Amino acid sequence: MAVKTAVRPPEFSALGRRAAPPTIARLMTAALESPGLLSLAAGFTDSASLPVDFVTNAAARLAARPETPEFLQYGTNQGRPLLRRLLAQLIDTEEGWAPGHTSEREIFITNGSQQALFLAMQVLCDPGDLVLVDRPSYFVFLEMLRGLGLEARSLPTDSAGKLDRAALARLLDHIAHGPDRARLKAVYFVSYFSNPSGRSLDETEKTDLAQALAARGIFAPVIEDAAYRQLGFDGHSPSRSILALDAWQPFPRLYTSTLTKPFATGLKVGYGCCSDEAWRSRMLHAKGHHDFGTANFAQALLEEVLADGSFARHLDTIRGVYARKCAALDEALRSAGLRELGWRWTRPAGGLYLWLEAPPGVDTTLDGPFFHACLREGVLYVPGDLCFGDAPEHNRVRLSFGVLAPDLLAAAAERFVAAARSLSR
Amino acid sequence: MAVKTAVRPPEFSALGRRAAPPTIARLMTAALESPGLLSLAAGFTDSASLPVDFVTNAAARLAARPETPEFLQYGTNQGRPLLRRLLAQLIDTEEGWAPGHTSEREIFITNGSQQALFLAMQVLCDPGDLVLVDRPSYFVFLEMLRGLGLEARSLPTDSAGKLDRAALARLLDHIAHGPDRARLKAVYFVSYFSNPSGRSLDETEKTDLAQALAARGIFAPVIEDAAYRQLGFDGHSPSRSILALDAWQPFPRLYTSTLTKPFATGLKVGYGCCSDEAWRSRMLHAKGHHDFGTANFAQALLEEVLADGSFARHLDTIRGVYARKCAALDEALRSAGLRELGWRWTRPAGGLYLWLEAPPGVDTTLDGPFFHACLREGVLYVPGDLCFGDAPEHNRVRLSFGVLAPDLLAAAAERFVAAARSLSR
Repeated sequence: MAVKTAVRPPEFSALGRRAAPPTIARLMTAALESPGLLSLAAGFTDSASLPVDFVTNAAARLAARPETPEFLQYGTNQGRPLLRRLLAQLIDTEEGWAPGHTSEREIFITNGSQQALFLAMQVLCDPGDLVLVDRPSYFVFLEMLRGLGLEARSLPTDSAGKLDRAALARLLDHIAHGPDRARLKAVYFVSYFSNPSGRSLDETEKTDLAQALAARGIFAPVIEDAAYRQLGFDGHSPSRSILALDAWQPFPRLYTSTLTKPFATGLKVGYGCCSDEAWRSRMLHAKGHHDFGTANFAQALLEEVLADGSFARHLDTIRGVYARKCAALDEALRSAGLRELGWRWTRPAGGLYLWLEAPPGVDTTLDGPFFHACLREGVLYVPGDLCFGDAPEHNRVRLSFGVLAPDLLAAAAERFVAAARSLSR
Repeated sequence: MAVKTAVRPPEFSALGRRAAPPTIARLMTAALESPGLLSLAAGFTDSASLPVDFVTNAAARLAARPETPEFLQYGTNQGRPLLRRLLAQLIDTEEGWAPGHTSEREIFITNGSQQALFLAMQVLCDPGDLVLVDRPSYFVFLEMLRGLGLEARSLPTDSAGKLDRAALARLLDHIAHGPDRARLKAVYFVSYFSNPSGRSLDETEKTDLAQALAARGIFAPVIEDAAYRQLGFDGHSPSRSILALDAWQPFPRLYTSTLTKPFATGLKVGYGCCSDEAWRSRMLHAKGHHDFGTANFAQALLEEVLADGSFARHLDTIRGVYARKCAALDEALRSAGLRELGWRWTRPAGGLYLWLEAPPGVDTTLDGPFFHACLREGVLYVPGDLCFGDAPEHNRVRLSFGVLAPDLLAAAAERFVAAARSLSR
């Protein structure tokens, strides 16, 4: 028997050494330490409307099939062919294309769209590389960039959140004629009812961006994150994507979205549609090393609900749910007097978030007085500074209306405004 | 509108440039091009015995719960607490520990055990690093090492497949006193009814390995892949793991296994149990970037079937199924005369594979004459040379008895032996 010795600590790789707890973990710790806290932070979806019957009916129908239950067997690395065909049809509809335009070969299934984003970055970028991101941007993506040792640079926006063409031209000139040119490996943006801003990029903005890049010979791979595209409250998708817009055709393009946010997040199935075969196949090789295929059962359930229309029916339901919850939060913040305290925001037309701007000088960061005032009042939010690739603003707040019921949203809003009032005295 | 130009190809990262199609993809292509082929290659599980009723009953029970259907909501990055408690209990039972020895804090849930292996390598190893692996070893793990730019070095085995202590001492002396010492970052082995060899490491072999490493001051993190531990035909686990064996206590230890191979591969839920908090937390941070949590619904289903005993009942069933299928393949190969052609193998006591040694001079590689003879006869196998981290042997074959029904196993065996006979004429 070996003599017991102290356990030797492992050495870590560069990636392992960079690995840091996500900032959001500190939020969760705060939540756990404060029972009774109402969270406007969590990006969860509405729990009361989760499609339990649709899922169990789909499982029962799969079980009743006479053939071998292949849905409980391993699937393929790229994903189920029927699911990929259904997604190709969905994209054709969304882009206004004739059926058959998108091929299922271009589509691959992932563990939520997050994995598609990770695979994309993994095969494109080495540590030290540069990625252009929207401003503000999805904070889990920004943390992933840091984990991979990558630098984010924000696409400039004006005070209304629109792409700032003049500032963009200056930024791209700087990149095109300097050492950053060789480091720039990808462009990323959340284009529909964005997390966190709730904004959508219109076709003109998307085209302007493509043309500004192309004019400088920058044809870096582009990733459009369309996770919230189907969550427009009126069912309307505000613009075509990089898949369809002419100006983006010369670029290698990856469009990512998810089947779980608009249906059931517990299934964790996302997808990518990639125009570039070499890029796609490299992402798939990397996925082969991650897990060699997303859970086949979850994919089979989603095939069922997409094919029989229950996915679409559920989407109709939750669009209404989120529209009402958005209105409830927005109105509760207004009626509690947050506007009068100098806060500004726009009610979005879809998605799960309100994006608030506090008066100048109010510090909304995790270590600032406002966050602690909110903890005292019993409400949690995502500090907006986490949502900037660079040059963070310190007076922004992301509020989610996804998970709380309308009465709790109203209560949370009152606590939030009470915290704002306590600081403005 | 932009003038259409040729699409610019993306530049790839070092990892992206290394990404190569898995060799197994060539097998699949061969299979698709030869309808009627019987595959002894696929590592799939038995389809006829898949636990459809257990899964649909579990789904119905979840749906019938009066509370909010949180199982269709996002879960946590580390995995469901109850599932992790159930797995901690499973480990306690398997290692012969009193209940409560293993903590659920040490356990994390992954997309199959493959993801746990990927996360482990990602946070430990940089390109150019060295990993010690069993000989033969799991070929998807070996391909993943190549994808990450890592070098595999085999732990030497004798002609019976046992760890060769003298050769091991020479290898470790060479590593300990040379430039490889700084590059060595991990030790990996499949210890129960191994893929591909069907062998289990006994406690003496495992302890010998730990002592040989420790004697040279090599306390590299160790990963024990126990994916087939529960698939012993008599329900017996042949040895304790690195979690329990004294000699391994000074090492950072990761034990990986899966709930899907012994139940339903379509659910794709694996797990790791890691003794080292820093290592575990870094893997979890990386997982946060991959997908921030394995599908909650699949985890909830597995909680149900573990807690109500249907997982254990299914395991009893499939142990018998695999024992019979193993016997069917083994006996069909014998009665068709493969022994008389000079082939050697041992019937394993568990798992899904037979590991065959062809007579010297028979080339079983993918481009060799035997593989093509098998294609002509209509049977597919995994060339054994893919299963070596270095110095591959070219006369080995992995046959899986997992997926084909017993009558088809017999037919496939006859084809296989016909191919062997055609080359020995």
